[in-house]
Amino acid sequence: MSIRELASHLNISIGTVSRALNGRSDVNAETRKRVLEAAAELGYVPNQSGRSLRQGTTNAIGFMVETNSEMSNHGDTFFTSVYDGVQKVFAPHHLDLVVLLCPSGDDPYDHVRRVVARRFVDALFISAIQRHDPRIDFLIEREIPFIALGRSLSGGSHPWIDLDFEGVATQAVNRLVARGHRRIGLVNPGSEINLGYIFADAYRAALAANGIAYDPQLLVRAEQTDEEGGYRSADALLALEPRPTAVVLVNENMAIGVYRRLHEAGLMPGRDMAVIGLRQSQLTGFLSPTLTCFRISLFDLGRRLAEGLLATMPAYRDSHPVGLVQEVWPIELVPGESDPPPR
Amino acid sequence: MSIRELASHLNISIGTVSRALNGRSDVNAETRKRVLEAAAELGYVPNQSGRSLRQGTTNAIGFMVETNSEMSNHGDTFFTSVYDGVQKVFAPHHLDLVVLLCPSGDDPYDHVRRVVARRFVDALFISAIQRHDPRIDFLIEREIPFIALGRSLSGGSHPWIDLDFEGVATQAVNRLVARGHRRIGLVNPGSEINLGYIFADAYRAALAANGIAYDPQLLVRAEQTDEEGGYRSADALLALEPRPTAVVLVNENMAIGVYRRLHEAGLMPGRDMAVIGLRQSQLTGFLSPTLTCFRISLFDLGRRLAEGLLATMPAYRDSHPVGLVQEVWPIELVPGESDPPPR
Repeated sequence: MSIRELASHLNISIGTVSRALNGRSDVNAETRKRVLEAAAELGYVPNQSGRSLRQGTTNAIGFMVETNSEMSNHGDTFFTSVYDGVQKVFAPHHLDLVVLLCPSGDDPYDHVRRVVARRFVDALFISAIQRHDPRIDFLIEREIPFIALGRSLSGGSHPWIDLDFEGVATQAVNRLVARGHRRIGLVNPGSEINLGYIFADAYRAALAANGIAYDPQLLVRAEQTDEEGGYRSADALLALEPRPTAVVLVNENMAIGVYRRLHEAGLMPGRDMAVIGLRQSQLTGFLSPTLTCFRISLFDLGRRLAEGLLATMPAYRDSHPVGLVQEVWPIELVPGESDPPPR
Repeated sequence: MSIRELASHLNISIGTVSRALNGRSDVNAETRKRVLEAAAELGYVPNQSGRSLRQGTTNAIGFMVETNSEMSNHGDTFFTSVYDGVQKVFAPHHLDLVVLLCPSGDDPYDHVRRVVARRFVDALFISAIQRHDPRIDFLIEREIPFIALGRSLSGGSHPWIDLDFEGVATQAVNRLVARGHRRIGLVNPGSEINLGYIFADAYRAALAANGIAYDPQLLVRAEQTDEEGGYRSADALLALEPRPTAVVLVNENMAIGVYRRLHEAGLMPGRDMAVIGLRQSQLTGFLSPTLTCFRISLFDLGRRLAEGLLATMPAYRDSHPVGLVQEVWPIELVPGESDPPPR
């Protein structure tokens, strides 16, 4: 199926079909819709290299992730589900999602500048957002369409979606206090990633709301938010006197290391130290004890991120009239066996 | 070594050699075997990249992964480390590695054809290789440079690297038998992925070499090679009479589900059922008991995959004179606490 055959099938000029496929504004909305629908139905695939050479568009949209911290910490299933949701929204537009890996050791700011200089993609998702994130200022200045997965002090009028870290910290603390816990630890990332600030602030506020004084020793910063980070954090909490009876983790994978460290100390996770993790995953229901954590619909998050991004791009805005997306993504508690009352 | 020299050496026409190398069915099996053996022996590397050189290069190379089965099964850290190694080799050539996600529900063969039609990348890494994999035939026929992470019955003279699944199965069975186990289960993928065939064949061969009759009930096929698949597999093994005293898993994440199911049955992982997993990861050392598994250098694997790919591309061949890479990647046992002798 060539563009000529597509035009012939629709009885529209090749020029108009081409402009419609390229999302140009000088084609009326109804014609554009007809062309896109016919193209999808007949399996028309545009000749990508010609287009991008002529017009600077690639029909590819990049999702920038850091190969070191983020992918290995959040775990694959986090991004996999998000990507699936993004692709669901992209499919009818024949947009390709490609994952751009910022190699470990490379500066994410340098990486994003390189990606933009090579005009490799039309737009970007960025993640692992820092408290101050120069990528955001750069993309705004260069007028590159993007959406951030995470809030930041940088930017302001750009689209973003962030998980409800306040909700996690507040609900976790309230639940533990209601069950009788008073010494509650929090394990946070050691980096400048913005979610750590949000998480800690909400934890302190929830303690205060419950009339519990904040003890800085109970806020542990983990170099890695993975199994090993969990192990080391549990080690630090066990050294405290009196020992905390509960801990809230910024990442569910850390629970594996926490459980291990408790076992080594002759303690039972849950019974001897309550544990609440972040996100329900393939892992959390199969731990012993199962982990109390929070359900987050990542497929829908991916869909919403894609809509929020396309809404900033003239060629796709009409299909996704969602305006400026700046949203905190909801979470829902999933009770497990890991947070009984203290003994 | 050119195709002309190879044909001359074999005293066969260039056309026949070309058809044999491309896996065409109009060449008889014996001739094809002769050609492939000679090609391997003489280090013939097909010139795969005439096409992208003629038609404009993108300086991007794609790594095709399936968002559903593979990423969520192997776990992020598998591919993250491989990507890091690939990027190390690509960096001096200013080549960009992009991850091309085959959406869940899409056919990988359709996906690779679409990627090629859009001329989005100059070359491809493909993974999750099937026993018969039409992607390989397609890429050979279209002369797209690629390397496969995994062996296949398709193709023949194309570059590939595969993990040493024979080594894993053989060493695991020998170790368990040496410790006194006789009823040893194996958990394999339920799909047509080629590694499942290799793993099962090696398991049966190792049992036979130890004078143990193969019991088909002990070979469990798991729908998902993840935590849930591990849970269900352990459930199936616990129902057998007499109960197996040990199990070898095709994926280390399954151990979490196996441990959980054993706990629910009032049994202790390791003590009541020995468990050996596949790959040492962030997870394996923090499980209780720690998991006996195998060290695989994924960073180096990524480097070697990149070298094997670039060796097929004229623009980079001289920098990476490694010939045709067809290699089984080594593994090394890491003893844990999970496989003591039977009680």
